Amino acid sequence: MVVIGGDAAGMSAASKVRRAQPDREIVVFERGKHTSYAACGMPYFIAGLVDDSEQLIARKPDVFREKQNINVRIRHEVINIDDESKKVEVRDIEKDSTFWESYDELLIATGASPIRPDFKGIGADGIFGLSTLQTGIDVFEYINKHSPKKAVIVGGGYIGIEMAEALLDLDMKVTLFDMAPQVMLTMDKDMADLIAEYMQDSGIELYLNEKLDRFESENGKVSSVITDQREESADLVILGMGVKPNAELTNGTAIETGAKGAIKVNKKLQSTVPGIWAAGDCAESFHLVKNEKTWIALGTVANKHGLVAGINLSGGDIEFPGVCGTAITKFKDLEISRTGLSEKELEETGIKYKIAKIESRTRSGYYPGSGKITVKLISEEGSGKILGGQIVGFAGSAKRIDTIVTAITAGMSAQNIVDLDLSYAPPFSPVWDPVQTAARRLV
Amino acid sequence: MVVIGGDAAGMSAASKVRRAQPDREIVVFERGKHTSYAACGMPYFIAGLVDDSEQLIARKPDVFREKQNINVRIRHEVINIDDESKKVEVRDIEKDSTFWESYDELLIATGASPIRPDFKGIGADGIFGLSTLQTGIDVFEYINKHSPKKAVIVGGGYIGIEMAEALLDLDMKVTLFDMAPQVMLTMDKDMADLIAEYMQDSGIELYLNEKLDRFESENGKVSSVITDQREESADLVILGMGVKPNAELTNGTAIETGAKGAIKVNKKLQSTVPGIWAAGDCAESFHLVKNEKTWIALGTVANKHGLVAGINLSGGDIEFPGVCGTAITKFKDLEISRTGLSEKELEETGIKYKIAKIESRTRSGYYPGSGKITVKLISEEGSGKILGGQIVGFAGSAKRIDTIVTAITAGMSAQNIVDLDLSYAPPFSPVWDPVQTAARRLV
Repeated sequence: MVVIGGDAAGMSAASKVRRAQPDREIVVFERGKHTSYAACGMPYFIAGLVDDSEQLIARKPDVFREKQNINVRIRHEVINIDDESKKVEVRDIEKDSTFWESYDELLIATGASPIRPDFKGIGADGIFGLSTLQTGIDVFEYINKHSPKKAVIVGGGYIGIEMAEALLDLDMKVTLFDMAPQVMLTMDKDMADLIAEYMQDSGIELYLNEKLDRFESENGKVSSVITDQREESADLVILGMGVKPNAELTNGTAIETGAKGAIKVNKKLQSTVPGIWAAGDCAESFHLVKNEKTWIALGTVANKHGLVAGINLSGGDIEFPGVCGTAITKFKDLEISRTGLSEKELEETGIKYKIAKIESRTRSGYYPGSGKITVKLISEEGSGKILGGQIVGFAGSAKRIDTIVTAITAGMSAQNIVDLDLSYAPPFSPVWDPVQTAARRLV
Repeated sequence: MVVIGGDAAGMSAASKVRRAQPDREIVVFERGKHTSYAACGMPYFIAGLVDDSEQLIARKPDVFREKQNINVRIRHEVINIDDESKKVEVRDIEKDSTFWESYDELLIATGASPIRPDFKGIGADGIFGLSTLQTGIDVFEYINKHSPKKAVIVGGGYIGIEMAEALLDLDMKVTLFDMAPQVMLTMDKDMADLIAEYMQDSGIELYLNEKLDRFESENGKVSSVITDQREESADLVILGMGVKPNAELTNGTAIETGAKGAIKVNKKLQSTVPGIWAAGDCAESFHLVKNEKTWIALGTVANKHGLVAGINLSGGDIEFPGVCGTAITKFKDLEISRTGLSEKELEETGIKYKIAKIESRTRSGYYPGSGKITVKLISEEGSGKILGGQIVGFAGSAKRIDTIVTAITAGMSAQNIVDLDLSYAPPFSPVWDPVQTAARRLV
């Protein structure tokens, strides 16, 4: 068995196979230096909240080799798949040589890469995307070496918001541009506006509806960012313009791609070519609410893909049912989460829906530390079935999305949520949990 | 319509009826001085975390009278129900006179009272149970007046644990006795032991397996507590020995009582006598996992009872499906929650079950503030259906019980929980939420 990619999906699958099949030969090719790292932790590492980048690594290549007998070969990049003769061409990056390795079964777990459009000047020093652990270390080292004072972030999605917090923590002046009329495009504008307001109150210079035009540099280092409306000086630029699946290896093979260019897989994580599997950020998922294929690049999904692929690759038979589109993050002490379909997404479908948006408290109003929480809940008209939820609020807010995720997955209605025997005590919740307060407006 | 009892269940119902039927005559008799107060907030008020007892009151009698035209009569105790001629006998406590009031429909929402066994010396000053808001104010005033230094708490349940925290916060030396071999009888012993250990580490003198014998007093004030094993000095005693439903009014009527002496009701909250309803801590509930009648005295349930009774009392037709036995509390920064059936409860049934108990982290291990969390999850053997869950851990632990509550209510299996698209980001969770890590052990 050959695995391409040594992060969450690939190594989860390899580990699962090893446990089930102690004698199988497992080779993992990873083009970077690291395995099984927490890419999601990078903004917090850059902010200085994590002492050492090593802490982001769950398990190192030599541990996989020695403890699990998994032949992990770092700095080895697969550059070709021959799906007919069942072999992959591998480039040994250190030696700069290539060789072919044959496989009985192949798992593609190549992940995703940040989108880096071809803007003029984008090659200057000090302009970073965030993808592998190494890119996070690069940003960290650049900051330590050059002590930038003025950062520009392009893109107000998850990475953009988390990096805005990180760079603000490092006492930089931070400007964030987005071409959209809101931050966090996975949220509806009314909820995103709560986030934008809080970011501005916290000192972020925020410009929406602005298109990036080009970068300017001095002595090879970025010096300013030019949009269609202004020029903003910058000695550090973070690109948070989204990611795309690493599916280039399928070119010239019978392996098909599907949703957003991700590798097409069924619920067992099999690609369209027998014996070839795909998992993690490079592969499709099934959207449980949209009821169609989707593509979501997230660590949780990658781990689940890896587990399911690993079970199936070692004689099991299991399906990964799919995702709800859950996501969570925070900006300073404002917590943000979402799941299911947003109003914006629903407008594109024929589904008729009802919306409740409520303000409540994270704890009983009289209990110290009680903070504001806004919950938006969307149900199908008629059936009352919950279709989506969005939460913005202070400590204790965002993880409440899990109740909505579970309810959506179970096909529960708003009335079902009202009836739930959710936990209550003054340090944890008002007597009606805010999720239920929202649901009460829908019945 | 006459309502007996002006707290959560009674006033929720009255308010719901008022909205649906603007012209109906609604009379509420409340024997105390307060309406709609948060009894659960009392330990925190006593600890000094809440500035004013008024903050625990959601709505006052005059607001109900003036804004909602609900005739709330405080200091009026119903002492008799004549269910044949449809009238109640009421004692005006201030005037010390009685009168009869007729009703078309009657809602009994008399709540519950702390158990106060007839131990020798229990009448001494400084020995308190906690039930109504007034009892909380009494404790608060007693502490302010007498500055007790040494408190004994009898009973290690929710009230006992919350009061232990409160009195410790007030710099008292605190001893807690329980006749059971563990604190928190609704948890299994292995989980309760985690709590007991933390309480002891925090300075609580904890004695389990000890039976209370009597109290001694000096000049009318409690001076010591004597158990079957020791004498412990005390200048304040809190009784947390459980509560019982206030169902005495049903004596001599056709209103039947059921589980644990609570008023028997169907899922519409109708008692066994047409036109008479019961809701809140005095009434039964249906246990969704045990599949039988149960009795649970909790603010959340009381609010839901009140809402459902109110809808049905004003022409609606709705059922309250039931409870899972969810509860949540904390001792200092250790959070505690449970739902469904414990191992102990399951041993009494014929159901075969599997247990997983795992230790994980509340956040990604490398993220600041990540704390230990222990999750115990129980599933039915064969079907894998989740039957119960218990959580003990630090900040962010306990509210995760809501995911388990929702899963149990939906009839989900352990595999269903593993598959859930729960939220993950380093400040909120490890990549596998601890609830899912437990579920993985059950599949």
